[in-house]
Amino acid sequence: MRTFRIWAPKPKMVELALGPRRIPMSRHEDDWWTAEAASLDAGGDYGFILDGKGPIPDPRSSSQPSGVEGLSRAVSHETFAWSDSGWQAPPLSSAVIYELHVGTFTPQGTFEAAIEKLDHLVELGATHIELMPVNEFSGNRGWGYDGVDLYAPHHAYGGPDGLKRLVDACHLKRLAVILDVVYNHFGPVGNFLDFFGFYTTDHFKTPWGPAINFDGPNSDEVRRFFCDNALMWLRDYHFDGLRLDALHAIVDCSAIPFIEQLAGEVKELEARLGRHLVLIAESDRNDPRLLMPRESGGFALHAHWNDDFHHSLHTVLTGETAGYYADFGSLADFCKALRQAYVYDGYYSKFRKCRHGRPPIGLDGHRFLAYLQNHDQIGNRALGERSSFLMSEARLKVGAALVLASPFVPMLFQGEEWGASTPFLYFSDHQDGALAEAVREGRRREFPAFAEHPADIPDPQALETFARSKLTWEEVLQPRHAAILDWHKRLIRMRRSEPALCDGRMDLVRTQFDENNRWLVVERGTLTIVSNLGQAPAAVRLRKGPHQLLAVSDVGITVTVTTATLPPDSVAIFKLPE
Amino acid sequence: MRTFRIWAPKPKMVELALGPRRIPMSRHEDDWWTAEAASLDAGGDYGFILDGKGPIPDPRSSSQPSGVEGLSRAVSHETFAWSDSGWQAPPLSSAVIYELHVGTFTPQGTFEAAIEKLDHLVELGATHIELMPVNEFSGNRGWGYDGVDLYAPHHAYGGPDGLKRLVDACHLKRLAVILDVVYNHFGPVGNFLDFFGFYTTDHFKTPWGPAINFDGPNSDEVRRFFCDNALMWLRDYHFDGLRLDALHAIVDCSAIPFIEQLAGEVKELEARLGRHLVLIAESDRNDPRLLMPRESGGFALHAHWNDDFHHSLHTVLTGETAGYYADFGSLADFCKALRQAYVYDGYYSKFRKCRHGRPPIGLDGHRFLAYLQNHDQIGNRALGERSSFLMSEARLKVGAALVLASPFVPMLFQGEEWGASTPFLYFSDHQDGALAEAVREGRRREFPAFAEHPADIPDPQALETFARSKLTWEEVLQPRHAAILDWHKRLIRMRRSEPALCDGRMDLVRTQFDENNRWLVVERGTLTIVSNLGQAPAAVRLRKGPHQLLAVSDVGITVTVTTATLPPDSVAIFKLPE
Repeated sequence: MRTFRIWAPKPKMVELALGPRRIPMSRHEDDWWTAEAASLDAGGDYGFILDGKGPIPDPRSSSQPSGVEGLSRAVSHETFAWSDSGWQAPPLSSAVIYELHVGTFTPQGTFEAAIEKLDHLVELGATHIELMPVNEFSGNRGWGYDGVDLYAPHHAYGGPDGLKRLVDACHLKRLAVILDVVYNHFGPVGNFLDFFGFYTTDHFKTPWGPAINFDGPNSDEVRRFFCDNALMWLRDYHFDGLRLDALHAIVDCSAIPFIEQLAGEVKELEARLGRHLVLIAESDRNDPRLLMPRESGGFALHAHWNDDFHHSLHTVLTGETAGYYADFGSLADFCKALRQAYVYDGYYSKFRKCRHGRPPIGLDGHRFLAYLQNHDQIGNRALGERSSFLMSEARLKVGAALVLASPFVPMLFQGEEWGASTPFLYFSDHQDGALAEAVREGRRREFPAFAEHPADIPDPQALETFARSKLTWEEVLQPRHAAILDWHKRLIRMRRSEPALCDGRMDLVRTQFDENNRWLVVERGTLTIVSNLGQAPAAVRLRKGPHQLLAVSDVGITVTVTTATLPPDSVAIFKLPE
Repeated sequence: MRTFRIWAPKPKMVELALGPRRIPMSRHEDDWWTAEAASLDAGGDYGFILDGKGPIPDPRSSSQPSGVEGLSRAVSHETFAWSDSGWQAPPLSSAVIYELHVGTFTPQGTFEAAIEKLDHLVELGATHIELMPVNEFSGNRGWGYDGVDLYAPHHAYGGPDGLKRLVDACHLKRLAVILDVVYNHFGPVGNFLDFFGFYTTDHFKTPWGPAINFDGPNSDEVRRFFCDNALMWLRDYHFDGLRLDALHAIVDCSAIPFIEQLAGEVKELEARLGRHLVLIAESDRNDPRLLMPRESGGFALHAHWNDDFHHSLHTVLTGETAGYYADFGSLADFCKALRQAYVYDGYYSKFRKCRHGRPPIGLDGHRFLAYLQNHDQIGNRALGERSSFLMSEARLKVGAALVLASPFVPMLFQGEEWGASTPFLYFSDHQDGALAEAVREGRRREFPAFAEHPADIPDPQALETFARSKLTWEEVLQPRHAAILDWHKRLIRMRRSEPALCDGRMDLVRTQFDENNRWLVVERGTLTIVSNLGQAPAAVRLRKGPHQLLAVSDVGITVTVTTATLPPDSVAIFKLPE
């Protein structure tokens, strides 16, 4: 016998639908309902019938073999044969993170297929994989941020067992695995949660749908839904950490905010498991409270995706000025990002039309992620262009060096390491025709620059849009891509071997730049990174040498005891004797 | 010549209307508009014309002689002859606050008339007056929370000069003055602010109208509007502090929240003026972050209205269980409030249907205000009943003793000190017929208990409802009221003369109670407060005496070396030799 349980304060009657059987459930004082039923055989999928309507899937379903509208399947987390006993993830301070979308990482788009590529990641030097959301979302393809069955690994990726095999395989290869989880909204399709309980609120809105009810009536159980989800991934799937999507879209005015509760419960689990766990925030608020220690009123999350680093680097490299890039563009901004993480730490933002952010005083560089690109920065462009589409190979190498020699935790997006020729487009697979059309339309409205040629924007619903976004692994062998891959490997090896590069103390970073001639010097202990983004060769004065050449992106780079000469779009890393 | 200035990002054209003249204003880059005009004579009221519409009043008007829809009058803050030089307010740790509504405090309902009653407050032992909002609101009578011209003292109260005379007179009598300010919404009438700029947001709502835009585009100037308002009251009107209304109705997700900015600017002003200033929060979130020091991530406000103390005391004394009172009622709750300020410090609230609050660890009792009643707790009842309407005089004395012997900052509401026979009703004076009717209707809907006799609820718009709420000072001489007044004076004197009563260390408070027989012992150093709220006499064991009797509310109270015997509804304060 097994006990089925469901929190459902809204309906007056709940039945368990188990195969052809309808089993009445008993309501308890806390609005949980239970029923006992014989153990399920393989085909014994189940659902709940609320006040006669349904069956609909279990909000805490472990598996949705037929997708978000189908029945739920119970999965035991006791039976998987883990082989990662004693595993400990390396600390973020020595991490190189690799962001990965299961559906497009391999031709097959499955957990299983991803396993075959792990050697590539190990050879690259990555220490952590970060999986874009794997929770069940509508259809067979999507980025994953419109999840609804947050406890169920997506059926098209290979479900619960596939995911466990992937995490286990990673650990065997000494790769840590972080999962991207979305606790700020639910997807529009297959979202039955509000039939059961008060998961969402109409007090606030997010750009993607109603906000989650974290501080209103009945919010305790809503918090449990999300906290238990986090604990499940870490405990039952052996994840080493979570990336918390878009925390700025959570409005929570309570005295003990949800994020604080979540961080506290993960901390307790960490102690129980004896295994290091990390929480990495995405938030556009530039609010160091997310990272500050508890005794300073902070939530003590481990790290923060630092978009200011990205935007300031991206604009310096591309000259783009549209949208939020209008707030960036100078070498001064990029140098501020290098030395203080946030460019906007209380200053007026033209894009936001108000002062923004707060200085992250006392925080180490290893509390911030630095990247030249990520799924959002690529995929939220109309044509999904990677940095390698937007700039020369020479300039791409400069960007890679500035990320991988930064005092932050560097992150690459799948294929970045070889300058993949494939785009990463926005794709979805909504079965509902009206919604599909709305997504198409919304996508077009997002890019007024394409107003006259809307058909140029790839149709998110088209299978081709998804297919085009898959990595083409064959190209890695082509000389151009192999050279880019080699450059990344070299930089990562250097980051490993040179303690100065891994030093997270931002206040020790020294910068020097010429805004007009576009050259930049970054000193990190005994190491100096010099780059020239100008149109003419630059002769840049250095600390007195002799300078050992660790890496040059261009054979035309020369150095004397006091001066480096760099052709346009080149970068060099020098080392002074200790 | 004088420069008129106005922040107005919305209109395309702004003109200054000065008497019959229309003077074009010049727009500056920061969306401020200016115009030079000859100094105004007494009758030279002004307004602004936005894109040809108007004139409408200045959002920062110093005076609205004809109300919220009328023209503005410029007032110089340089000319008033202050006589309070060298004034310093006493600290909150030795304060007794007296909440006062100017319109009903005296028959005339003016600042000037209030001055005549200051001797009464001095004799009572009050140290601070807290004025309910005096900003311009619609009509000639109202509580003041629906203000729109936040810089203009209400014309019906006596305008800017009247207010300055009142504050000056208070200071001469060594009374500090705190002003209640409403920074969470604007009133529905005379609200022209959003014609000028982006003062409100549709992202969040308050129960009383759109929320203020503290963190969205254009919010910097909105923050300036409120910060400058706070600074004006403290600097130009010599207020000693502000009571910040309903901070829980402010949703502000920025990294440097408005409240933190406001507190910082007031702190700077304090240093500049060399005069102690306090900020007192109203917030229903039970969030000690408001009070915590900056280094702990707090906003370092000075004190917090503690409704949990009120609710737990009120329910113990009245047995009421409606609405939020359902969350309280036991002596255990009241004792928790005495020892930990918040009853809800993270525990589940049945009324709110979620966990609520956070422990105010390390905070002194003097950071919390304690009261048996206030304008809200009285006026938000259908019939505006004071505690003296709801309980016997004997029980009222118990309540007063428990407030005035608490480790908190005690506060009385005008007339409480003599058990005034007048109610304090909800009243308004909206000229707009539809709005007036909506207010009436809203009031009726608020009290389902009156569904069958809605006419029993006093009409908020009726002049009589306001008139009935005015204090009847003559009654102070009647023996019953004189006795209550005497009891309050005695308790306040005792609080002054007994250091143990003024001790804010909540962790030193010892409590003992019998939930069934309804007696309660509160030990505060050498002092013991014993009260019997049961229906039978109570014999309560005390620390070994001899006990000196400091105050008894009932002549039937007796005490031996170890035992106090109290008749029902009585309270006694004993002292042990040091």
